[in-house]
Amino acid sequence: MKKVCFGVDVGGTAVKMGLVDEEGTLVKDVEFPSPKNPDDMFDEIAGQIAQMLKEFPGVQCVGVGVGVPGPVPDRAHVHGCVNLGWGVVNVAEGLSRRTGLPVLVENDANLAAFGEMWQGAGRGHRHLVMLTVGTGIGGGVIADGRIVSGAVGAGGEVGHMPMPWHQDWQCTCGKRGCLEVTSSATGIIRAAREFPPFSQRERVTAKDVFDAAREGNADAQRVVTEAAHCLGTAAAIIACVVNPELFIIGGGVSAAGELLLTPVQEAYRQQAFPPSRNTVFDLAILGNQAGIYGGAGLFFCQV
Amino acid sequence: MKKVCFGVDVGGTAVKMGLVDEEGTLVKDVEFPSPKNPDDMFDEIAGQIAQMLKEFPGVQCVGVGVGVPGPVPDRAHVHGCVNLGWGVVNVAEGLSRRTGLPVLVENDANLAAFGEMWQGAGRGHRHLVMLTVGTGIGGGVIADGRIVSGAVGAGGEVGHMPMPWHQDWQCTCGKRGCLEVTSSATGIIRAAREFPPFSQRERVTAKDVFDAAREGNADAQRVVTEAAHCLGTAAAIIACVVNPELFIIGGGVSAAGELLLTPVQEAYRQQAFPPSRNTVFDLAILGNQAGIYGGAGLFFCQV
Repeated sequence: MKKVCFGVDVGGTAVKMGLVDEEGTLVKDVEFPSPKNPDDMFDEIAGQIAQMLKEFPGVQCVGVGVGVPGPVPDRAHVHGCVNLGWGVVNVAEGLSRRTGLPVLVENDANLAAFGEMWQGAGRGHRHLVMLTVGTGIGGGVIADGRIVSGAVGAGGEVGHMPMPWHQDWQCTCGKRGCLEVTSSATGIIRAAREFPPFSQRERVTAKDVFDAAREGNADAQRVVTEAAHCLGTAAAIIACVVNPELFIIGGGVSAAGELLLTPVQEAYRQQAFPPSRNTVFDLAILGNQAGIYGGAGLFFCQV
Repeated sequence: MKKVCFGVDVGGTAVKMGLVDEEGTLVKDVEFPSPKNPDDMFDEIAGQIAQMLKEFPGVQCVGVGVGVPGPVPDRAHVHGCVNLGWGVVNVAEGLSRRTGLPVLVENDANLAAFGEMWQGAGRGHRHLVMLTVGTGIGGGVIADGRIVSGAVGAGGEVGHMPMPWHQDWQCTCGKRGCLEVTSSATGIIRAAREFPPFSQRERVTAKDVFDAAREGNADAQRVVTEAAHCLGTAAAIIACVVNPELFIIGGGVSAAGELLLTPVQEAYRQQAFPPSRNTVFDLAILGNQAGIYGGAGLFFCQV
């Protein structure tokens, strides 16, 4: 009987989940708006699981791997999800009780990194760091094939590394000058807004800034270079801590492709500890399905 | 029959080694000058092992854990030891062939961290980072009870994190502005030498600077504060990557005790990601026997 597993990526606005077989094929996936109440959330996920298992009767389901947008120190409890208004919630118990299946829980950014290792840009690697650059900057650290969750589930929270740029800019975490105030989409937009044409527009996206840089706007180029330089410096620092084989850049800002990747790598090479100077940089390939693969990987990935 | 193990700490000037039982008691230790040639080194270590096993006939020796001053990505080969003039050396094979025992090899700073976790300041913890502050700054990262060696054995090389202080000061690694140019004994001495009385003395030690700070010398206090601030900032950054429960500060500079620890913790608390702000800081307690315990821990430590 074919073994399968569910990967569930709980987001602030939507839940993405899918049935994945042990070879890593995503057999079927669904997406639905996030219920804000934990019990409603678990009911809805359990209902989807029951329905999918009815559709695929000839399989043996070995478990459910869940990513949540908050710290998870013990593979079970999330200690606060700001985007969902949750305090401490035992996600493993809530879902296991409703499904009768083993449930493993992880932080969503960590799980995305794990998914990329199992079936994405990180295939064949055991030591990698994923930087998810979007509205903020998330991260996931994999050391010797295992997710580094940390003491309170704050492993891989690289967006909040104190950095020397924009030390007066407020971060969502309460501090100032974190990596993400400079290098996230939010930071790129904020920096670009100091110059025309961005200072005059009502709505500016990171893509607008990258497009302008590509078209030769010197201010936009300076903003992109600074964001990339800060990200590459952060990578050089991270490499001195966990020394990955590979950095994977994902998230919305990674759509800029080489325009982002090239200066990030340049800044990295200039500042990396010489023995780890040749660490590879690559773009994520699983997009917003990385968490589904990561969830299934908690049961199936053997590296 | 009592199980024992050898822990061996190969340094640039001396080898420290000891027989440790599975409860973590150091039964006997010896120290001898480091032979520079790998074969002579292995002969000498194997000879000491044979002699100690003759002295303690009623034991079963399960292995030899060796720390070497260079990167070890695979628990066997060291990829260059600058202090010994070695290139790539298969330490595991060299010692196993001579002793008939299983041999595991690690970087010395990583092994010291592991020793402190097993029998020192880190007992009872599974997630910790040790910062060894001496002539340079070494480090060891333990995540979920396992040493993070990294892709090329450069995990825990936190002394070479690029930092914003003294970006013009040369580091031994070839870069400039690494953490250790500011916060090591070397950095503290260099910074103090800009001011009297240190600018006039032929020989200055880090202890001299700490003593002067304790006696109220404002320049010395400024130098100590800067070194500690940089170290605390580095710890805040490291915590965003691996989120330890505990930072252990060891090495010669840690003899300054609270005079170092207090401002390091202050800088950490100011800059740490809020969920990990309460990470504990403690001083190492095993001194230069940490590597011996760490080597034995590779076989005996079950966390």
